[in-house]
Amino acid sequence: MAMQERAVRTRKSLIHTAAAVFAEEGYAPSSLTTISKRAGVSNGALHFHFENKKALAQAVEDEAADTVRRLVRPADRAGTSALQALVDATHGLAECLLDDIVVRAGFDLGSERALGPEARLLSAWREWVEETLRRAEAEGQLAPGVSPDDAAAAIVAVTVGFEVLARDDPHWLAERRIAGFWQLLLPGIAAGYGPVRARPAAREGECSRAEEA
Amino acid sequence: MAMQERAVRTRKSLIHTAAAVFAEEGYAPSSLTTISKRAGVSNGALHFHFENKKALAQAVEDEAADTVRRLVRPADRAGTSALQALVDATHGLAECLLDDIVVRAGFDLGSERALGPEARLLSAWREWVEETLRRAEAEGQLAPGVSPDDAAAAIVAVTVGFEVLARDDPHWLAERRIAGFWQLLLPGIAAGYGPVRARPAAREGECSRAEEA
Repeated sequence: MAMQERAVRTRKSLIHTAAAVFAEEGYAPSSLTTISKRAGVSNGALHFHFENKKALAQAVEDEAADTVRRLVRPADRAGTSALQALVDATHGLAECLLDDIVVRAGFDLGSERALGPEARLLSAWREWVEETLRRAEAEGQLAPGVSPDDAAAAIVAVTVGFEVLARDDPHWLAERRIAGFWQLLLPGIAAGYGPVRARPAAREGECSRAEEA
Repeated sequence: MAMQERAVRTRKSLIHTAAAVFAEEGYAPSSLTTISKRAGVSNGALHFHFENKKALAQAVEDEAADTVRRLVRPADRAGTSALQALVDATHGLAECLLDDIVVRAGFDLGSERALGPEARLLSAWREWVEETLRRAEAEGQLAPGVSPDDAAAAIVAVTVGFEVLARDDPHWLAERRIAGFWQLLLPGIAAGYGPVRARPAAREGECSRAEEA
């Protein structure tokens, strides 16, 4: 039991260390030796948990995708309009990208050629944005003629863009940047602009909660 | 003279080959040997033109930035409103990113950690977007309360996002995608939406022209 617990902790530590190394150096130049040394485990222990660097990257993406799923769950709860859920979730994602190295690395890995197009985090985010815009349409929240598909594309592209630009300057993920984007986009997409706030409705620190869980 | 001409041609060929290799493999894993072999020149000839991989990457970024400068020039000409110039230039940039491997590689290199934050192409694009939005504000084209800074950030982020997403699926840079984004954004930023078209006012094939020049 204690051994199993230790194994779980080692696996978790390897994922977090790999995320930090990928985020600092990029995926391609990162070496498994650097990761195992920094995590304070032997190369053998690393290979017990992860067959190769790709498997480790996939574990980072999976953990990041789990965090994002936890992040959008409260936004989906009854009583929150679909558009407000979108606004809140983009703020939550920006906060996670700033605070949680695994989410940041998971998002970065999504544009990694070596891993192929099956990036888990970006797909999970994109699917949720698309679904939520279809819900907004069904709830009559979209302005006449707005294509949920175009709106989803713009929102996904802008979140990817902010994340890439924030690698050099974290201000790109500041709350006022995200709110500024929504202030410009909402008049074009929302049927009734009034009830949707460009700043998040509730700041529940999704990222910190996710880390505590 | 013939020798000088040949040197110019070799330099150009190395830049184009490097762009193709960077775009396919990513900057970090690309080797100078692969590039010189594919360009059909010796390692010695490569080193005569470029001290190292970073110098070659900077030459790719410089050539890409020149193309983008040529691309925005007609959009800046008298008679085009600042907002229409922005719409037209984003369409032109998307076309260049699809058709011109040097522009695509130059843009990719902008998010390359190893090259530091001085990415020439992305800075050139960002500065032009910011300037043009200030011009739009001065010309009274922005809706009341719209911050040119927020609008520039949204436009730069969305172009970066589309480019990153298009690495796996070029449809992200399709004309209808770019037009869809503008259709959603224009109501929020333009004082008079009417005169600005989400599709480009004039398709002059900037990229093809730039290549012929």
